[in-house]
Amino acid sequence: MSVSMYNASIPGFLRMLGNLSAILHKAEAYAIERKIDPSVLLNARLAPDMHPLVRQVQAVSDTVKGCAARLADIDVPSYADTESSFADLQARIAKTQAFLQSIVAGQVEGSEDKVITLKFPGAEMTFRGQDYLFGFVLPNFYFHVTTAYAILRHNGLDIGKMDYLGRP
Amino acid sequence: MSVSMYNASIPGFLRMLGNLSAILHKAEAYAIERKIDPSVLLNARLAPDMHPLVRQVQAVSDTVKGCAARLADIDVPSYADTESSFADLQARIAKTQAFLQSIVAGQVEGSEDKVITLKFPGAEMTFRGQDYLFGFVLPNFYFHVTTAYAILRHNGLDIGKMDYLGRP
Repeated sequence: MSVSMYNASIPGFLRMLGNLSAILHKAEAYAIERKIDPSVLLNARLAPDMHPLVRQVQAVSDTVKGCAARLADIDVPSYADTESSFADLQARIAKTQAFLQSIVAGQVEGSEDKVITLKFPGAEMTFRGQDYLFGFVLPNFYFHVTTAYAILRHNGLDIGKMDYLGRP
Repeated sequence: MSVSMYNASIPGFLRMLGNLSAILHKAEAYAIERKIDPSVLLNARLAPDMHPLVRQVQAVSDTVKGCAARLADIDVPSYADTESSFADLQARIAKTQAFLQSIVAGQVEGSEDKVITLKFPGAEMTFRGQDYLFGFVLPNFYFHVTTAYAILRHNGLDIGKMDYLGRP
């Protein structure tokens, strides 16, 4: 026995997207309650040359839609990265969730040895499906979810580890 | 075909521990070069009620040694959490790496449906092996590695995403 590529990817993505959505709802309520301009939180960063909250959420979305599409061998949906409000980020998350939910386990099965090639400006990375998932997607995905959480914690939002983890 | 519990866990733990060790070497060199008391970095936090760098590294170690031992059905090694220098943290990481390397794939195989129970003060959590790995261990593991990285980025260390990811 062993683990399917589907179980190792999509359900965890969906759970964490739900947790991130709930955290962003709390952040929006916090901004309203404390009369903080939402753009202060949306543009907050942990270091001057790190990405702000909005981009962290976009990166979470990009990482999982890219992974799901590549493992399922379908086109990666293109989203415009124009989000500038909490409502926009919620819509981005909802769109990402709907895409992930449209993929059935059978489409992803057998992708553990599929050759995946990522193209970057001036560079290319090639992986086996399972190395792509475990060595690239999951570290990136959790990096951006955690950084979004940490930006909001650093800015005083009253959330804790269980908001990040959800109820597994 | 599918993925083994071993491939989904230990190799990624070892790679990220190596990346974290390299980041901490850079942090130590940065403290020396800039004449920063190392304890300033070791005790730095992103929020007053978040754990400092030392505890983030201990939590990384705890998460993976606990996972590897539970999946392999052996006792979880107990480490004293007394680290107070960069050298101590490097030793903690090395000890954790050696433990993970002592586990062979066969010990972890078949653990996907093993019942895993975690005991906390006043609470218990029970998982199937694969839900423990994908729904609890990996989110926690990457949370603490990312937070260690973010604490150091926030404190001016010149590192980037490839220090976190390593070369997959």
